[in-house]
Amino acid sequence: MKKLMLLLSIIYVFPAIAYGMEINRIEPANWWVGMKYNRVELLVHGDDISTTTPAVSYPGVDIVEVKKVDSANYLFVTIEIAPDAKPGHFPIEFTLDGKLKTKVDYALLAREKKSAERKGFSPKDAIYLITPDRFANGNPANDAMPGMLEQPNRAYKGGRHGGDIAGMEQQLDYIARMGFTQIWPNPLTENNMEKYSYHGYAATDLYKIDARYGTNEEFQRFVQKAQQKGIGVIQDIVLNHIGSNHWWMKDLPAKDWLNFPAEYKETNHRRTTVQDPYAAPADKELFVSGWFVPTMPDLNQRNPQLATYLIQNSIWWIEYAGLSGIREDTYGYADQQFLSRWAKTIMDEYPHFNIVGEEWSPNPAVVAHWQRGKINASGHVPHMPSVMDFPIHETLREVLHEAESWDKGWVRLYEMLGNDFVYPDPFNLVIFPENHDTSRLYSYLNDDVDLFKTAMIYMATMRGIPQFYYGSEVLMTSPRERDDGAVRADMPGGWKGDAKNAFTGKGLSPQERDMQSFVKKLLNWRKSSEVVHSGKLQHFSPVNGFYVYARYMQNKTVLVILNKNAQEQELDLTAYRDFTAGKKAARNVIDGKTITLGESLKLPAKTSLVLEL
Amino acid sequence: MKKLMLLLSIIYVFPAIAYGMEINRIEPANWWVGMKYNRVELLVHGDDISTTTPAVSYPGVDIVEVKKVDSANYLFVTIEIAPDAKPGHFPIEFTLDGKLKTKVDYALLAREKKSAERKGFSPKDAIYLITPDRFANGNPANDAMPGMLEQPNRAYKGGRHGGDIAGMEQQLDYIARMGFTQIWPNPLTENNMEKYSYHGYAATDLYKIDARYGTNEEFQRFVQKAQQKGIGVIQDIVLNHIGSNHWWMKDLPAKDWLNFPAEYKETNHRRTTVQDPYAAPADKELFVSGWFVPTMPDLNQRNPQLATYLIQNSIWWIEYAGLSGIREDTYGYADQQFLSRWAKTIMDEYPHFNIVGEEWSPNPAVVAHWQRGKINASGHVPHMPSVMDFPIHETLREVLHEAESWDKGWVRLYEMLGNDFVYPDPFNLVIFPENHDTSRLYSYLNDDVDLFKTAMIYMATMRGIPQFYYGSEVLMTSPRERDDGAVRADMPGGWKGDAKNAFTGKGLSPQERDMQSFVKKLLNWRKSSEVVHSGKLQHFSPVNGFYVYARYMQNKTVLVILNKNAQEQELDLTAYRDFTAGKKAARNVIDGKTITLGESLKLPAKTSLVLEL
Repeated sequence: MKKLMLLLSIIYVFPAIAYGMEINRIEPANWWVGMKYNRVELLVHGDDISTTTPAVSYPGVDIVEVKKVDSANYLFVTIEIAPDAKPGHFPIEFTLDGKLKTKVDYALLAREKKSAERKGFSPKDAIYLITPDRFANGNPANDAMPGMLEQPNRAYKGGRHGGDIAGMEQQLDYIARMGFTQIWPNPLTENNMEKYSYHGYAATDLYKIDARYGTNEEFQRFVQKAQQKGIGVIQDIVLNHIGSNHWWMKDLPAKDWLNFPAEYKETNHRRTTVQDPYAAPADKELFVSGWFVPTMPDLNQRNPQLATYLIQNSIWWIEYAGLSGIREDTYGYADQQFLSRWAKTIMDEYPHFNIVGEEWSPNPAVVAHWQRGKINASGHVPHMPSVMDFPIHETLREVLHEAESWDKGWVRLYEMLGNDFVYPDPFNLVIFPENHDTSRLYSYLNDDVDLFKTAMIYMATMRGIPQFYYGSEVLMTSPRERDDGAVRADMPGGWKGDAKNAFTGKGLSPQERDMQSFVKKLLNWRKSSEVVHSGKLQHFSPVNGFYVYARYMQNKTVLVILNKNAQEQELDLTAYRDFTAGKKAARNVIDGKTITLGESLKLPAKTSLVLEL
Repeated sequence: MKKLMLLLSIIYVFPAIAYGMEINRIEPANWWVGMKYNRVELLVHGDDISTTTPAVSYPGVDIVEVKKVDSANYLFVTIEIAPDAKPGHFPIEFTLDGKLKTKVDYALLAREKKSAERKGFSPKDAIYLITPDRFANGNPANDAMPGMLEQPNRAYKGGRHGGDIAGMEQQLDYIARMGFTQIWPNPLTENNMEKYSYHGYAATDLYKIDARYGTNEEFQRFVQKAQQKGIGVIQDIVLNHIGSNHWWMKDLPAKDWLNFPAEYKETNHRRTTVQDPYAAPADKELFVSGWFVPTMPDLNQRNPQLATYLIQNSIWWIEYAGLSGIREDTYGYADQQFLSRWAKTIMDEYPHFNIVGEEWSPNPAVVAHWQRGKINASGHVPHMPSVMDFPIHETLREVLHEAESWDKGWVRLYEMLGNDFVYPDPFNLVIFPENHDTSRLYSYLNDDVDLFKTAMIYMATMRGIPQFYYGSEVLMTSPRERDDGAVRADMPGGWKGDAKNAFTGKGLSPQERDMQSFVKKLLNWRKSSEVVHSGKLQHFSPVNGFYVYARYMQNKTVLVILNKNAQEQELDLTAYRDFTAGKKAARNVIDGKTITLGESLKLPAKTSLVLEL
């Protein structure tokens, strides 16, 4: 495959210009044989290309549809690939009045074995979220790249710091050792924007890794290396918007390629309009079609060519790079019918894959709308298997430093979890203490290590798929209020000459070292803890600053005791008899010590336990 | 019917004792012919009555089942009444070893015409909630009654003040004039408790009006008189608990008549356990079976005789008194299967009736669980048509004095309403600014009349059935924090010699008088406003301290502009073009003035509008 890709690159970089016309782009630049998705609509871009007629002569490949759009420089050519087509490459020829004007070589690749059966991330996993520009600068040579509008500036918190794919690759051993089994990097596709390009959510080329992170091939290799260490890679995909420097913007395929193309309108962010039976049509429309910021044009997925382009792009990355999942940004801001089709097409191709969408709402009824299996009054039929659990995220954070009372503190987390009946599959939600858009939880908790450990225990033992943010394992801090540049600070040790190094442990404070070993122990225990991966859950009404729950399956029980008490406090164990009956002792996973199970248990201040019974 | 009832009273008061055994109770003491519910299980109470065999000889009436329970002093006798049975009365004879030991006369009454077709309260109505002890003392002669443990003490806020049915009856004209079309009195059944008996939620006899309120006959007459003035009466029924002085308590029919009969356990009030997929069984059980307080024994509706007793009791009151609805207290604390059967049996008997349950939760997903038509993951099949809208209640109250921001203020009310997709029938929810268990909203708003008026406008125009609390129309106050005795203060003018009189207007301050006339105008307008009764609803994302919504139907639109701004503020009207297009002027219902509809509208501080377009 490597040779084919090399060949493809050559073709791609030097398009056929011999006959008087130039093809600048053909996307996707290749496809695969044996895909369920075998009618591929190729975007062909070149001056006046729409005046030509494309033709193909290759066994098992036919052109079944050719569409012109508003711009004369685009042609959308749908090829159908027969199930028995063989890998190989062939020219697509474009003629005008019987004369060949240009041609382009197209590649049909062989699929990786068992590509369709790939397993997506699941409750067996722990996800490590990385902001790639800020994690490790493995290749300083790509920090400043020709043609890139923003140059590196490590001194500026909103600037590019130089982290890259090479850096992540070099730290795969560290990540694996810590017990993480999935990596979710913020988007790696090209963001050739003048400023703030490091976050990655303003793509200027949806088929190309940003040169400052590396190349498509490097990304592909990184995923392969990660897999060899038992780590999957989740790609962060943005369907809602692009960056204003996207190459489309100079020559939009169609007038309706963007929402509000004539006059900038900002989204109202009123996500409840999606299900609200009384929402004014204009409010609904503004939510979906309004832009985030002027530098992020909002895509109109109601345009059929664009919709297909985006779907193919996602499948292309899964197949090309070998992904184990997709994290979809700002879910719900895109057209609903499109979202349904997008997720369905992917899941049809990869039935065991996983996709998690971001629906930033504290309301489970709003979040549940998007999960596969939900029957919605809105009419939307979701096909996405997972959603980010923002309700638990927000509640956990508030609850940890909230005084206990009848209706405050643990009981709020207990009651929020009790809403799980609204989800078709709560065990497949992604839970998280923090991400790149929030403050670091440790800082939010006023640097209270004990409470932070309790949060980590919750994440490691609660239903769902836990997602952590790079560096929190060594107590990286941030302002308490959201501050994007600051929360996405450089991972210590990721840059040559860093005084502190999280990867080697050099220069870490005793507290940082302790936290790192705590997380490492917890996640490595979780990795082989079947009862956490697939056990049932039962939780108990919180009492006296304790919140207790059990993960259980036949002959296996883990009892988790979350403890917020600032003083030593006794816990009555009789309430948990259904699980402790007949058991005299339990092993605390945290320190490996054995605990005697009597009528009650005295717990030191703010010490939470994970007990294997 | 009156004569029959009189006869019945005589039989009831002087039970047959001639043959050596005494029947203290037979409940229900009568039934009706032509009921769908025609198998009636009679509770018969008398010393050793279970040793006897009952017999009936009346055309169309058969004893079909006789059940003994734990106490020898009870017999549960099920009679079946054939569709063609005639009204009349007949003896039920109880024999032992062939000898007649006692007998009791039983009455079968004729039903009121169209009893089955009665219409329950609906969105056409405005409900007036009255705490009967505190509204009007129409008959001072029944303030202190022999055999009643608590004597009147008007000086004490937790004591009995003397209000009664006669008082409510005397003020029917006032209530009708104000525009209310339903009265919901707090429970009127006997509460012969030592203290705090005035609230009515600790019944000591479920078939008897408390003597200090009047008699069963007086209640029946009150309902009839109310109906003549176009007012329905809703009975407040408690299925979950009784008072500890209930006559059952001296001789419980069965060991499992009460929950936790041996050892007092308080409910944990953890209502989320009902739907929580992970709730510990003991927590679920404690919620349902725990008691509220030691003076309120918790009924175990899983006992089949008790379940049937309670269902028959509800039907008996509807049929006997001529009710237009039931308000059911502490819904969800009772056994779920029973609740389903209870509501279904009533609604089968009276298909157009209405029942509203109290589920005191701020979470619509919790409240919706109980409304007819909801498909529940819990398995519960609800048959109750309406639920109290606590989520809107709590949000409205908080929002009215919350500063506006991106996610605070009106937007919270807007988003809460947007959750209506979780309800099978949101237009049949009961909405309310306050009730007997909350502080007065006017006081909660720091005596801000303008904000309070805005709340009244919301109540009068929003989807659902509005419920108001007596006295708020004349700005009755309370402490800001819940204080039961104080919020249920005496209605001015309800007692002879009151200096102030809300009914006549005497002694009201100009502000109180203004509020009363405001409510009167609003509700009388609502009374004939079809578009509010059955129109659709559309609302707009709040802007600049305004929250705008429309109630609309073919050729009729009411545009409501809620305004919290403390200064004069301009509202851009172009957002509401879908409703205002082609209309040049609108009538403001509040002051009757005509308003010109231009591009924008200047609104005085805190002035809300109800515009008929």
